[in-house]
Amino acid sequence: MAHVMSITLNPAIDLAFYLDQLMLGAVNRPAESQLEAAGKGVNVARMLAVLGHQVTASGFLGEDNDGPFRHVFKTYGIKDAFVRVPGQTRINTKLAESDGRVTDINGPGVSISEADIQTLLQTLQQHIQHQRPEAIVLAGSLPQGISTDTFGQCLQTLKATGIPLWLDTSGPALTTAIAQQPAAIKPNEHELAEWAGMPLSHQRYRLEAAQRLHQSGIEHALLSAGAEGVLWVSSAGIWQSTPPQVDARNTVSAGDTFMAGMLHGLLNQHAPDDTLRFATALSAESVRHLGVGDPQASDFTTLLNLTQVESMDNAATESSLS
Amino acid sequence: MAHVMSITLNPAIDLAFYLDQLMLGAVNRPAESQLEAAGKGVNVARMLAVLGHQVTASGFLGEDNDGPFRHVFKTYGIKDAFVRVPGQTRINTKLAESDGRVTDINGPGVSISEADIQTLLQTLQQHIQHQRPEAIVLAGSLPQGISTDTFGQCLQTLKATGIPLWLDTSGPALTTAIAQQPAAIKPNEHELAEWAGMPLSHQRYRLEAAQRLHQSGIEHALLSAGAEGVLWVSSAGIWQSTPPQVDARNTVSAGDTFMAGMLHGLLNQHAPDDTLRFATALSAESVRHLGVGDPQASDFTTLLNLTQVESMDNAATESSLS
Repeated sequence: MAHVMSITLNPAIDLAFYLDQLMLGAVNRPAESQLEAAGKGVNVARMLAVLGHQVTASGFLGEDNDGPFRHVFKTYGIKDAFVRVPGQTRINTKLAESDGRVTDINGPGVSISEADIQTLLQTLQQHIQHQRPEAIVLAGSLPQGISTDTFGQCLQTLKATGIPLWLDTSGPALTTAIAQQPAAIKPNEHELAEWAGMPLSHQRYRLEAAQRLHQSGIEHALLSAGAEGVLWVSSAGIWQSTPPQVDARNTVSAGDTFMAGMLHGLLNQHAPDDTLRFATALSAESVRHLGVGDPQASDFTTLLNLTQVESMDNAATESSLS
Repeated sequence: MAHVMSITLNPAIDLAFYLDQLMLGAVNRPAESQLEAAGKGVNVARMLAVLGHQVTASGFLGEDNDGPFRHVFKTYGIKDAFVRVPGQTRINTKLAESDGRVTDINGPGVSISEADIQTLLQTLQQHIQHQRPEAIVLAGSLPQGISTDTFGQCLQTLKATGIPLWLDTSGPALTTAIAQQPAAIKPNEHELAEWAGMPLSHQRYRLEAAQRLHQSGIEHALLSAGAEGVLWVSSAGIWQSTPPQVDARNTVSAGDTFMAGMLHGLLNQHAPDDTLRFATALSAESVRHLGVGDPQASDFTTLLNLTQVESMDNAATESSLS
C-alpha cells in the first residue's frame, strides 16, 4: 500500500441536532446530537486509510477545538501533520427537524496569515522529504486570509516536488488549480461549465469540456455528475461510469470517497475500467449512510457488478469529427 | 495561596452564534461565533486561578471534544485531573438574534457508568493525597447515569478526607448535598424555599431558612438572591450583602465567581465582612461581561466601596424571639 499525503486548508466541524420541532426563543432539548470532524481532505484521508494506505493529513486546524480531528486520526491511524493556528476551526451546525426542515448555521473560520502558510509549506516539505508520498491530495475550500494568488503559489511549491497532485476544489480556487496543471482534478458539471464557458447540457458538450480540461495539461480529468456517474478523460482513454441506484441519504462524502477510490486503483495499477468501477461503486455505497464508503459492506460485490463502465473513445472521436 | 480542588461532574461546551435573523430552512452565515468550555466547577476553578490559587480541576469530560477545556486549563494554569469518558461532552448552542430573541439547543451529554465513578473517586483520592488541597469545591448538575444515591456516596467519600467541601448544585442533588453536611452550600431563594418547605417572600423567612440550613450542620449557609445580594449564616455571625447596581449583561458565571470569592477570603483568613464584600463585588463585576469576575477591573475599588455588608445578628435574635 502507498503513502499518501492529504491536505485540508479549511476543515470544519459538523454539529448536527435532531429535533422534533425547533421552538424559537425557547430552550430546546434534542435527544440526539452528532459532532464530527469534517472537510473534504479529511474525508479523503479517512477513505484512503480504510483502503489500507498510510496517510499523513495536513492543513490548518484551530488549536481550541481540534479534539474531533484527533479522534479521527487516532481511530483511522492517520498521521497528524496539521498546523495549529490560534482560534477555532469553523463549526457548521445543522438543525434537523422531524418534518424534514433543515436549518444550517455555518460559523466563521480562523483567518490564515502569511506566516501560517509558510509554516504549513515547511511542515509539508518535511513530511514529503521524510515519507516520500506517492500522491498528494488537496481538497476543499480556501480559508479566510488565503488569496487565490497565494493558493497558486502553494500549489506550485507542491507540484515542484514531482509527486502527483490531486485537487478537488471549487469557485475561483478551481480556476487557479486548473492553471497549475495538477495530475488530477474533479470538478462537477456546474464548475466545469463555468471554467469552459459553455453549458454542459448534453453528453457531447460534457465530453468536449472534459477533453479540453485534459488537454490543458491535466492527466486525469474527472467530471462528476452525482447519480449520473463520472466521465474520466486521461491519456489511457475515456470512460463513463454509471452507478447503481441506491437509497441516497447523505451525499456529503460521496465525492471524497470517489477521489480516494480512483487514487487507490491507480496507485495499485489496477486496469482503468476496474479503477473507475471500484471508485464509482464505493461512492454509491457511501451515500447510503453518514461518512465515507465501506468496501466491506455485505453487498459491495453486488454494487460493483451493477456499476457500468463504458469506453467513450469512439464517442470522443465522433465528437471531435462532428 | 492555597491549593483547591474543583469538581465538575457535568460540564458543557457553550457554542453561541450571533445572527441578524435566523432564517429557518436556509443556510445562515453568522459573522460571529463563540465556543467556550463551561460548567459551574470549571468557572469556579477559573476564578480561583485568577485569584492566585493553585487549582486542580476534575470531573468527567467526553474524550472526543475536550479541546476547549484543555485550552482553559492551559490559559489559567489549572491542573487537569478530569477523567475522560467515551463520547462527547454536551454542547449547549445559543442562537442570539439582533432583536434579542435567544433560542437554546441543549444537547444530550455523556452517560456515566459505575466504573467511571470509581475511576473518578480513585483519581480524586490520588490528587488529594498528593496535593492536600485546603478545600474541595463541587459545583453543577449531575450527568446522566449518576443517581442522587451514588452522588451522596461520592460526597461521603470526599467528606471523609476531612477537607472542607463546598457545594453548589440544585434540584434533588441539592437535598442530597445538604444531607451530607458540607462546609458550605449556596442555594438560591427558590431552591432553599423548596428544601425548607416555606415561601421566602420576606427577609425574616429567608433568615429563618438560612439559619435552619446552618443549624443542620453546614458551617457556611449562603443564600444568593441575585441583584439583592447574599445572606450568609455561619458560626461567626450573620451578614447580608447588597451589590452595587451594574449593567447586567451576562449572569452565567456570577454565582461561581461569588463562591470562589468567598473561598478566597476564608482561605486567606480575611475578616468575614471583608470576605463577603469582596465576593459580592467580584460577582457584580462579573455580570457586566462574559466569563468570571475581574479583580483587576479599573473600577473594582469603586465596586467594593459601593457594596454594602450589614451584620444581621440583631435581626436574627429578633426573628427567633418573635
